[in-house]
Amino acid sequence: MNPLIPIVLSGGAGTRLWPVSREGHPKPFMKLPDGQSLLAKTYLRAMGGDHVADVLTITNRDYYFSSKDEFNRVVEQSSCNVKGSFLLEPFGRNTAPAIALGALWARELHGPGATLLVLPSDHLIQDARAFHANVREAVVAAGEGQLVTFGIPAASPETGFGYIEGGETLGTGLARGIRRFTEKPSLAKAQEFVASGNYFWNSGMFCFTADTLLEELAAHAPQMHQALMACWENTWQASDDKWRVLEIDAQTFGDVPDLSIDYAVMEHSSRGVVVPAAFDWSDIGSWNALGALLPEDEQGNRTQGDTVLIKASNNLIQSEDRLVAVLGVDHLVIVDTPDALLVAHKDHVQDVRQVVTELRTMGHDCYRTHRTVSRPWGTYTVLEEGSRFKIKRLEVRPGAALSLQMHHYRSEHWIVVSGVAKVINGEREIDINTNESTYIPAGHKHRLLNPGVVDLVLIEVQSGDYLGEDDIVRFDDHYGRV
Amino acid sequence: MNPLIPIVLSGGAGTRLWPVSREGHPKPFMKLPDGQSLLAKTYLRAMGGDHVADVLTITNRDYYFSSKDEFNRVVEQSSCNVKGSFLLEPFGRNTAPAIALGALWARELHGPGATLLVLPSDHLIQDARAFHANVREAVVAAGEGQLVTFGIPAASPETGFGYIEGGETLGTGLARGIRRFTEKPSLAKAQEFVASGNYFWNSGMFCFTADTLLEELAAHAPQMHQALMACWENTWQASDDKWRVLEIDAQTFGDVPDLSIDYAVMEHSSRGVVVPAAFDWSDIGSWNALGALLPEDEQGNRTQGDTVLIKASNNLIQSEDRLVAVLGVDHLVIVDTPDALLVAHKDHVQDVRQVVTELRTMGHDCYRTHRTVSRPWGTYTVLEEGSRFKIKRLEVRPGAALSLQMHHYRSEHWIVVSGVAKVINGEREIDINTNESTYIPAGHKHRLLNPGVVDLVLIEVQSGDYLGEDDIVRFDDHYGRV
Repeated sequence: MNPLIPIVLSGGAGTRLWPVSREGHPKPFMKLPDGQSLLAKTYLRAMGGDHVADVLTITNRDYYFSSKDEFNRVVEQSSCNVKGSFLLEPFGRNTAPAIALGALWARELHGPGATLLVLPSDHLIQDARAFHANVREAVVAAGEGQLVTFGIPAASPETGFGYIEGGETLGTGLARGIRRFTEKPSLAKAQEFVASGNYFWNSGMFCFTADTLLEELAAHAPQMHQALMACWENTWQASDDKWRVLEIDAQTFGDVPDLSIDYAVMEHSSRGVVVPAAFDWSDIGSWNALGALLPEDEQGNRTQGDTVLIKASNNLIQSEDRLVAVLGVDHLVIVDTPDALLVAHKDHVQDVRQVVTELRTMGHDCYRTHRTVSRPWGTYTVLEEGSRFKIKRLEVRPGAALSLQMHHYRSEHWIVVSGVAKVINGEREIDINTNESTYIPAGHKHRLLNPGVVDLVLIEVQSGDYLGEDDIVRFDDHYGRV
Repeated sequence: MNPLIPIVLSGGAGTRLWPVSREGHPKPFMKLPDGQSLLAKTYLRAMGGDHVADVLTITNRDYYFSSKDEFNRVVEQSSCNVKGSFLLEPFGRNTAPAIALGALWARELHGPGATLLVLPSDHLIQDARAFHANVREAVVAAGEGQLVTFGIPAASPETGFGYIEGGETLGTGLARGIRRFTEKPSLAKAQEFVASGNYFWNSGMFCFTADTLLEELAAHAPQMHQALMACWENTWQASDDKWRVLEIDAQTFGDVPDLSIDYAVMEHSSRGVVVPAAFDWSDIGSWNALGALLPEDEQGNRTQGDTVLIKASNNLIQSEDRLVAVLGVDHLVIVDTPDALLVAHKDHVQDVRQVVTELRTMGHDCYRTHRTVSRPWGTYTVLEEGSRFKIKRLEVRPGAALSLQMHHYRSEHWIVVSGVAKVINGEREIDINTNESTYIPAGHKHRLLNPGVVDLVLIEVQSGDYLGEDDIVRFDDHYGRV
């Protein structure tokens, strides 16, 4: 049996889901009402397949540590014995280059018959049993040399999706031939497609062997194939028992055409087939879609967090840590985060990306970062910034360490409020227990470690003339950030 | 010339202006878009009168220090040489008892002919010149033994105000007789009143001599008069060159009937007159009224703070420190504060008090306190609360001191981020400069003082099993809070 290698594509900013989704914390990392992120759900889906021993994540290198953390949590929770592989892009280059590099890697490591299951990480599928039954169908077709797409039976005339027109049923399985791919259609066209009953939304999920894909890529996009071979030769690899990381070379990657897998291969190949999805599927494309996951009250309101509703109906309210009171309003989407609030009419949720565009134009930081920022060692949250001071809460995971570093302009007071810290401060190395503190003068080399088995929570009060994140000189780092 | 004694009545929760107005920070303390509070504006108005040497504030004792701070700021800014007197109520008892006690005090201190100018502290009057011209008219009438009300020409059929029907013009001035007082009317009645052109809104502002008021009170509300005499005998007084404070005895005050000055005196007296206001007037009764003070953009939006508006019209948005993005909405009132958000339709702003009622029922703290809390020595702001820790920013005014205190359950880390602190910590007394810190173990007697001439800003990290505000034992306090 050939191994099944899920390839999780983790890209896409999800700007329509601002202010929760941001450039530094994009849609795959958003937690759904059940507390699990879309990426975690995708990993669970990936690991649930038969004969899965290795999951490849293809993502921007900025999301490496966050993705790895998410992967690790899923492995721990599900007790799957699966290796985590990460193919890191220096920048986005659409789906064809990413998937083809994944195929090159799979062929080299797992043989030419390795079967790839391509899964975008920002979709929601709740019926795992039906999904895996479909995947088994797809694996059989892939084994016969076909390029399988998963088609979602078009139930409504969405104009934001690509469509696949289904052809003849092939053999005894569910797979059908493909008559045609259609880019995002007009509403009239979309309505026609839905009425015909023979059209599917192109879900972006695929299944094929590494060899089939690479053969078809060479045949239909020879220039890309050639550029990718050069890029693959320059891709840097490292691995141990548990993890494998591949860093794509930026220079040669830049020479690869920016094309989708549909455009580069699927639309030209005669080997494409579609497996109609028997499972539910949502791309969580807007706040309305996300809201649908919350229970509805008698007035049609869906809420999460601390809320008071008076004379209010059909609203979606999501609050993280503040009270949201609404009065006499309906059909609103209200999304509250520590540093930014969105109030939108439900009919306009598709335009949330315009807010993000506007914020980017303004140079406003909150299109990009949240108040809580992920780091390889845990997270930090800016609690307050004032004149000449900044207060942060740091959460450091067990066994993790910040880099050995030094600041020119700021000194730092550290107070441990939970767990225990090991601190290197100039020449000294000390343990700081809960409710103890230390002081790092400007110019001192220092390092913070969590030697314990529970999270370390530390309050940092910075003081100085300049408090920018870029006042940092790193001398040593466990995460290669020197 | 008899002295003119403004009596500033500072009560009223202003629940329709939640979430900015709260029980612990009521409407008079709300800052308008120009940065000045309604109370400060009232003090400026009071001090602008002729022959004013003493301003009496009647308020709940909980608001003593905040009112005094506000008074002090106005005195400093305007360089008026005015004494501040404070008559402190243990609880609210409507306007008649408050004003009558003010009259007793004025008669005793400034003689029976002392003229009182009663000013509610939550109204906005922008035309000071016209206001003072009206006051001069009123003072003349008061000198002739009349009870003067200031009537606002009824320009629209408001159903939330009491109305005064004007009578004959008296003498050569503006003052007119009063035909009738009418409580809050029906809409039909109110429309009739406005059409007649002879009706005024009862503004709650009055002018009379101490003697006239007390005589009329004795005549028309003898039981109240008697109860007030007993209460006055038990009122505790203290004063120095600059300040005078009177604390009303709770027991005898509890025996005084709870009545408005209109109901107890004005509606029964034949000595009432009305001076039609030549000045603008607003009771800032709702967010719509407050919003009207902000400039309007081309789409009719009025905003304060960091906002992004897309396809939005006729909204009022007020934000303190977060980004508020709105999209495709109109006629909304959005008021954002650090711990609570209001989103209401403009047609429902009168019902904001229902939100407050609901919060009170829920036992939710944010009907009562803000994240920043006033103290006699300055303010504290809770930046974050977590398991076993709480972080506050303390701002201590020059020369101010916290009480000498001790906590049983919590220890405190103090880091000075601005200014200089003097700290008594157990047996030691030390100075802590900016960017220095100290530690107060649980059970240690301690005190924090600001010996400097600029504000002291200090970050406090509390640590312990119990972090409630009530874990405090006070040994000595400059503000009488032991």
